Amino acid sequence: MPPRCLQLANINPNFINMEYAVRGPLDIRAGEIEKELERGVKMPFDQVIRVNIGDCHAMGQQPVTFLRQLLTLTFEPRLLYSPDYPEDVKKRARLILDNCQGHSVGSYTDSAGLEVVRRQVAAFIERRDGGVPSDWQNIYLTGGSSPGIKSIVSLIHCQLDGKTPGVMVPIPQYPLYSGAITEYGMVKVDYYLEEETGWSLNRKELQRSFDECQQHCNPRALVVINPGNPTGQVLTRDNIVEIIKFAHDNQLLLLADEVYQDNVYDKNSKFYSFKKVMHEMGEPYSSQELVSFHSTSKGYLGECGIRGGYMEVMNLCPKVKAMLTKSITAALCSTTAGQVAVSALVNPPQPGEPSYERFISENNATLAALKERAELVYNALSGFEGYKVNPIQGAMYVFPQIEIPPKAIAAAKAKNMDPDVFYASELLETSGICIVPGSGFGQKPGTYHFRSTILPQTDKLKLMMEKFRVFHAEFMKKYK
Amino acid sequence: MPPRCLQLANINPNFINMEYAVRGPLDIRAGEIEKELERGVKMPFDQVIRVNIGDCHAMGQQPVTFLRQLLTLTFEPRLLYSPDYPEDVKKRARLILDNCQGHSVGSYTDSAGLEVVRRQVAAFIERRDGGVPSDWQNIYLTGGSSPGIKSIVSLIHCQLDGKTPGVMVPIPQYPLYSGAITEYGMVKVDYYLEEETGWSLNRKELQRSFDECQQHCNPRALVVINPGNPTGQVLTRDNIVEIIKFAHDNQLLLLADEVYQDNVYDKNSKFYSFKKVMHEMGEPYSSQELVSFHSTSKGYLGECGIRGGYMEVMNLCPKVKAMLTKSITAALCSTTAGQVAVSALVNPPQPGEPSYERFISENNATLAALKERAELVYNALSGFEGYKVNPIQGAMYVFPQIEIPPKAIAAAKAKNMDPDVFYASELLETSGICIVPGSGFGQKPGTYHFRSTILPQTDKLKLMMEKFRVFHAEFMKKYK
Repeated sequence: MPPRCLQLANINPNFINMEYAVRGPLDIRAGEIEKELERGVKMPFDQVIRVNIGDCHAMGQQPVTFLRQLLTLTFEPRLLYSPDYPEDVKKRARLILDNCQGHSVGSYTDSAGLEVVRRQVAAFIERRDGGVPSDWQNIYLTGGSSPGIKSIVSLIHCQLDGKTPGVMVPIPQYPLYSGAITEYGMVKVDYYLEEETGWSLNRKELQRSFDECQQHCNPRALVVINPGNPTGQVLTRDNIVEIIKFAHDNQLLLLADEVYQDNVYDKNSKFYSFKKVMHEMGEPYSSQELVSFHSTSKGYLGECGIRGGYMEVMNLCPKVKAMLTKSITAALCSTTAGQVAVSALVNPPQPGEPSYERFISENNATLAALKERAELVYNALSGFEGYKVNPIQGAMYVFPQIEIPPKAIAAAKAKNMDPDVFYASELLETSGICIVPGSGFGQKPGTYHFRSTILPQTDKLKLMMEKFRVFHAEFMKKYK
Repeated sequence: MPPRCLQLANINPNFINMEYAVRGPLDIRAGEIEKELERGVKMPFDQVIRVNIGDCHAMGQQPVTFLRQLLTLTFEPRLLYSPDYPEDVKKRARLILDNCQGHSVGSYTDSAGLEVVRRQVAAFIERRDGGVPSDWQNIYLTGGSSPGIKSIVSLIHCQLDGKTPGVMVPIPQYPLYSGAITEYGMVKVDYYLEEETGWSLNRKELQRSFDECQQHCNPRALVVINPGNPTGQVLTRDNIVEIIKFAHDNQLLLLADEVYQDNVYDKNSKFYSFKKVMHEMGEPYSSQELVSFHSTSKGYLGECGIRGGYMEVMNLCPKVKAMLTKSITAALCSTTAGQVAVSALVNPPQPGEPSYERFISENNATLAALKERAELVYNALSGFEGYKVNPIQGAMYVFPQIEIPPKAIAAAKAKNMDPDVFYASELLETSGICIVPGSGFGQKPGTYHFRSTILPQTDKLKLMMEKFRVFHAEFMKKYK
């Protein structure tokens, strides 16, 4: 090998430290197994079931007709004259095209996105929050929620009094946060969700985490994921009030990951936006700095590949907001396909419009199926020996605690694996089910978990649960 | 105002230092003027002509039918059964859908993009470069070229021997580079293109720049933009050989921005890819580490808003490449619309296929119109008093040097403006033409330039050139 300009020793060390467990070694192994199956290699199963990624369409969820028609009409405006498309969709497509330079989605939009879509987002938020005002100039359209989250994490990257900036994240957390924090060389400050009370969040634990990190970093922001990923809980209003007070009292920017706001299944749970609660609390809390993220990748749309999303930034100092805008400008703009998808999310057909009946029935069917699957998964796993499972109130995931017998822990150690990775790896190799070990999200030391989505179509999910049951029984028989 | 968690004093200082001139104050002012015109405010012109951004469709370039049909069929697969779409497009759409999880572009792709499209890109590069092999596993699909460039700049961010990493960029340069370098807190190392010899690049100047920067930074990479932005030159093969030797001798990663590879107008110029030249030079040069960027935003497609692009990374140490892949993984994947657009770029209809005639005639018409406009702009501006203009061999821009009379320089000073900004601002306010002052790209001290695109439709461009002529004559009369 010739000498290289770039070697591990002279590249960005943060790239080396970064982890992204959702697409870690097990995901790669799952891909290899799929290729082996294609080549006809004999396995104890005939397909890999990927419940490691919240990838709705990949698991058979059907696209919402209205959204795809809106995209089609904006890509091929000639179809605006076709009788095959409903008038309400055409009207929406024309409005978007009229607001694109040169009437083409092929032109750049403003860096923060098309004004017309940003205004639709603001109107959507006002409706959702019962009239709490939303300023369209606070809306930034993003390519999914990931780039938005990364831009905010990067914004607060500032060494103060010799201390590295820190971001408080829940444990367990979605690894996008740990990834971004590590990529920018910042400190991840863990606070634990309380598994015993349904993954709730309490102020005492926030305070402990905040106090302990002071020695080695300067905490600047607090991330909350509601409904929870990977934990599937929906925060109560009281819990949200507590969190807002804590952020305010400690001068922390609040980052509310609310991408699962439409995924609430439990009849006793309700989604409250941080913005609405903050507003209702009045001053000084209603002036709290907050960024809320939403996406077209989840909910009833599940359009992960299109990359649509938005963030609403609230109460930011105008000069700071100007810097955020400037930094986004250099990346030109987010994809217009994503922006059109956001428009579909926030400005859906209304009662009386020609597309309404179809839209609402598709929407309801998807959410009802997810609700059914949430119960199915919860009920099935709750019956497994040594499992502790919290009900899936929302989002798309279950995150059970599993008791791994000492003999299995020893077997894992012999293979130089964490016990939860060992369990997940055995599951993949013997049954083709691909889950993510809890260590990828973080868990209390000495406890073991995994995350599985609830996304396979119901029949397939039942089959999967049966395979899983057999695997677990065998595993326990072998190692107990 | 309540106290804020985030203030200018405690956010990322790199955000404050960043500049992105293409969308600077003049672009914002142009937007204000447009709104004033809409409200009926009287101006000395009835529309703003935006020649500040390389935004093809915004200036009336028509989308390529084949690309839009491919997008439509992948987003609405029901149309695969419509007789309105040619079979070759359907075949391509089916191939893409067959390679999407769940047969939907709504599912996530691999982080580096769909394997099928990456293979098409590799085949395209091999055809382009006369058989020089391309490995599809070196191809990363990106959302336009910007995110690719940013990820590579970030990859080499490593403090070595207490020195900050530097990136060598041409002056004038496209401000994406300065923006990314500043955002990551790295050092921009300027080397000057030689205006007198048609913006060519010589080794002596590269060496000067490299030597002088050693005291304050550690140069890691060399950026070359070919065809040039904002300068419009096409590098000769000899020039490319020189650059490759220089990069090799100084252990610099080569970043070749080749997004204008299809935009060559001068009959004596030819596009040579850095990869091909490197390959032909043989060892040790053929092992040089190189990243090449391409995009669907320019060329005959001009699909800026869709955000499609790719990068080919060559000769990278496998361990380093793995880190790059990992960092991309955390952003999940680039937009599928962009990936489909890349597929259209690299796998267009072939002779004999039903879409071929239409495709090739649209493609030729667009490139012929751009060639005509390049000549038109060059000829018009060459006649202006005090202008020095290099021929527009390629890309989409002209970057003339203008002599600004001392009286105008004094008038600019009185307004606290750079002279080139003053000139561009006067042009905007009196004629509605929006250009970018040379200082946004960098220029030799004491010289003044601006960048204008050649994108307005020919009739409009003629009108614009006449307005421009009148403005310049008045300006000279006033200040000479």
